[in-house]
Formats: sequence, C-alpha cells, structure tokens
Amino acid sequence: MLYLVGLGLGEVTDVTVRGLEVIKKASRVYLEAYTSILAGVNVQELEKFYERPVIPADRELVEEHADEILNGADTADVAFLVVGDPLGATTHSDLIIRANERGIPYRLIHNASIMNAIGASGLQLYNFGETVSIPYWTDSWRPDSFIDKIEENLLRGLHTLCLLDIKVKELSIDALMKGKREYEPARYMTVDIAADQLLAAIEKRKDNLKCLNADRLCVGVARVGSTNQMIAVDTLRSINGWSLGEPLHSLVIIGRTHPLEDKMLKIVANATKK
Amino acid sequence: MLYLVGLGLGEVTDVTVRGLEVIKKASRVYLEAYTSILAGVNVQELEKFYERPVIPADRELVEEHADEILNGADTADVAFLVVGDPLGATTHSDLIIRANERGIPYRLIHNASIMNAIGASGLQLYNFGETVSIPYWTDSWRPDSFIDKIEENLLRGLHTLCLLDIKVKELSIDALMKGKREYEPARYMTVDIAADQLLAAIEKRKDNLKCLNADRLCVGVARVGSTNQMIAVDTLRSINGWSLGEPLHSLVIIGRTHPLEDKMLKIVANATKK
Repeated sequence: MLYLVGLGLGEVTDVTVRGLEVIKKASRVYLEAYTSILAGVNVQELEKFYERPVIPADRELVEEHADEILNGADTADVAFLVVGDPLGATTHSDLIIRANERGIPYRLIHNASIMNAIGASGLQLYNFGETVSIPYWTDSWRPDSFIDKIEENLLRGLHTLCLLDIKVKELSIDALMKGKREYEPARYMTVDIAADQLLAAIEKRKDNLKCLNADRLCVGVARVGSTNQMIAVDTLRSINGWSLGEPLHSLVIIGRTHPLEDKMLKIVANATKK
Repeated sequence: MLYLVGLGLGEVTDVTVRGLEVIKKASRVYLEAYTSILAGVNVQELEKFYERPVIPADRELVEEHADEILNGADTADVAFLVVGDPLGATTHSDLIIRANERGIPYRLIHNASIMNAIGASGLQLYNFGETVSIPYWTDSWRPDSFIDKIEENLLRGLHTLCLLDIKVKELSIDALMKGKREYEPARYMTVDIAADQLLAAIEKRKDNLKCLNADRLCVGVARVGSTNQMIAVDTLRSINGWSLGEPLHSLVIIGRTHPLEDKMLKIVANATKK
C-alpha cells in the first residue's frame, strides 16, 4: 500500500495519530521536500519524533524516478509524507496514477492545508472564490493572469487566497547554459514581495479593473498553525511595509465581509501588531 | 486558554498528536455535536480513546449558553472539539468573539475538513470556485440560489463543492406550536436527495442556464477520510441512483477538467462500483 500522509502545517506534532501509526509501521518513509515546508522543522527533527529514518524526496526523485518510491509497495507499506494535505499539489496525483498503473493500492491520510487553515484569518471559507498562485517574476517574465481571477472573485464579493511561490532545488539556468547541473538557493515568497508584484500589475492594468486597487483590504499570514503564526490586516498598499518573518507566507485579498468576519479580523489584527 | 481542536473527518485517530495532548490536559472537554459528525464514531468511543470525559455541546449550549463553556478558561484550559477544522462553521467564530470579549485567549488546532479533503475525489483544489450549501427543502420553502453560484463557477470552468444539509437537534415546529420544546430526529442529506433537489431546480430554471444541466458530470462522496469512504462519478441525472450509505455525504459539480484530473476520476470511480 502507498500511504500519502498529510503532516499539517505547523509543528511535528501536527501529524494525526493515524498518520503517525502509518509512519512508524511503513517499510520506507519519504518526505516530499519541494512544494512546501513545515515552519522551522527539518528532517532530523522529524526522524527524532518518528524514531525512524526519513528519506527526503526532491522534485527529481518524485517526477523522474517515482518507480524508486513505489518499489515494493505492492507487498509492503510505503509512506510518502506531504506538508499540509496530501492532495494539495498536482504532483502527488501523478504519483497515485503511477501507483495505479503498477496495481499498487493507495490511501490518503488527510490533514489541514492552507486551503482550509486560512480560516485562522477570521474570514469564512465559503466566502472564498478561486485560489490563485503568484509566481516569482523575473526581468523578462512577468505573468499577471492572477489579476483577472482576483477581480472576478471581487466582482462576486468573494475573498481570494493567493498561494505564494516556492523555489526549492530549482536548476540554475545560468549553470545549465554552461553545461552544469546546479541548484539555485531556496526562496519562499513573502507577503511584501507578493504585494509589490500585485501593485505593479494593478498599476499596469488599472483602466480595466473595477474592484481591485491598492486600497483593497488584505490579510497577510505567516506560519499558519504554528505557535508563532502572524496575521496582518492592512491595505494592499501598506501591507508590504509589514515584515512577517520566516516562511511560509500567504496573502488574502478580501471581498465583501460579513459583520462576524469584521469582528474576527479585528481580533486577529490585535493579536499581531506591526 | 480556549483551544478549538479539529478532529478531522474519518476516525477517532484522525485527531492530531498536538490536539490529543491538549485534550488530555484540558480541565474540561466539549464536543460540538450539531454541525457535523465523525463517520460512525460516538461520544463513548471518543471518551475511551481520550481516556477522559467529554461533554456533548448542542446548538443551544454553544449559541445560548456559551459562557458556561468559557467559564474558567481565563485561568485553565478548556478544549472545544469540532469535527473537521475548527473554523469550518460560522458558529465557532462566535465562540471566539465571546471569549475575546471576556479577555480569554484562544488557539486553533487545525485539521482536515471537507473543504480540502475533497481532493480525495481526484479534482484539484485550486480548480474549485465558491462553495455552496444545499438546504433540505420543505413543501413551502424551496430556495435555489445555489444554482446561480454553481452556474457562475461553471461559466469560469470551476468545480463546485456542495455541502449537504444536516439537521441535528432541530426544534420541532409542530411541537412548538403546541407549546412544547421537542426535537426532530437527526437527518443528514444524502447525495441522491441533493441530486433530486438540484434536478428540480434546474428544470424550473433551465431557460436561463447555459452550463448547468442534468447531464453534467458529478462526484458524490461519502465518509471522506474514513476507511469505508465511497466516491461515485456519474451524471447528475444518474447519480441519484447511487446509494452511498451512511453520512456524511457531499457532492461536487464538475467544471472543466485537466487531463490529470480525468485520470484520477477514473481511478477513484473504479474503486467504488455501483
């Protein structure tokens, strides 16, 4: 059996009791280590808590050598650990599809992901529209289609969860051009970088935007679910003056609020001061 | 401290290790017992697993006598257990707001909720639009505003998660009119009832619907996260021929799919046969 085990968001102890049982009994345990991170927790700490070895699985292993992960999973249990919920990222569907092709059954052990834990912001989950991803811009690549989706959500009064880019073990283009296989240092987009990119995209497209502008109220969150989480409530223009510290960060563009949401936003804003 | 602890969706062991530590140490433990249920798990089983007493909290206690829950939470820990994630239902924001008014700090222990565990259907979470709720119709009350939201999602190619109504400890109107305070038996809407109501609403509104019709592909899910979960993939017209067994059920109206989602839908459909 292939077990895809969600680790939740904050601490090592955010694994479920059922997930921990699976991890302890599995013949091999992999940790997916490139689409997310547990705030401030490294592989050694996980190994200590689980009392067993954990194999870090980078993008190369999961996408190009998935068979290595699946080997033996037809007769024994293999656990594949994912920060958040196991099906948050497309890549893991791919692993299930490969397992299925080899006749290997799978089971999901669910956990919190940012897609539902964002409720910590005080905003109601059923008032969110489509989620968007904000990628790191480069000098020559500045996609901004997320603007259309945020605007469409706002037109319907809905909040938008913006997932911020993560670059872990990305091949260096410069090195590749020199014929070498080297990796860029890991980068995690912060709320202020996301706000900068959003403000630049809004400035460029402002003539066609009815709702989205620099004065729109936002919620910036950092390390949701951990004991040192931070939540900032401010306008898009001002939120890039906040420093929310270590990754991971996410940003919500707020739509129409319910009075209960307004009260909750005040409470969470008071808990995090500039 | 008021701890709001998510229990996840499937089994008693879906609580997180951190959540379990809180439950074991708290001075009192309440179980919110009216917006959701753990598939096939009752209070006695929870008490046995936690090795301590659990106080069931119905709507009346939470909404009208919240102070009883909060008493002493300024000097000791009180745990309030919620199936899924603690902030899935509006009511629990209300409890936090009351705690805040009394100067009592709170902390969330997140867990999976149907809002993210619906990824088990094989559909990608970031292709979902606004979530809708489908209430039980009565002879005289047949609201169908969910149709507009599903249609708007479909126009944008997005999937819609439909949360199905739960009636637990609802006051009997008949009894009230006779001056008595009695409760209706608990009811949990199944996928076939939801499909019946959707088909009736579509029939009534069909002249104004471009995308939503009876041939739309859907996913019906039951007991997501438990070992006996069931997932059915069929047209809306045909899905009400399925019997997915015990609660809780949810329904997804499928928008535009990615090839990876198509492959996943085939895999999950093969795992559940009519």
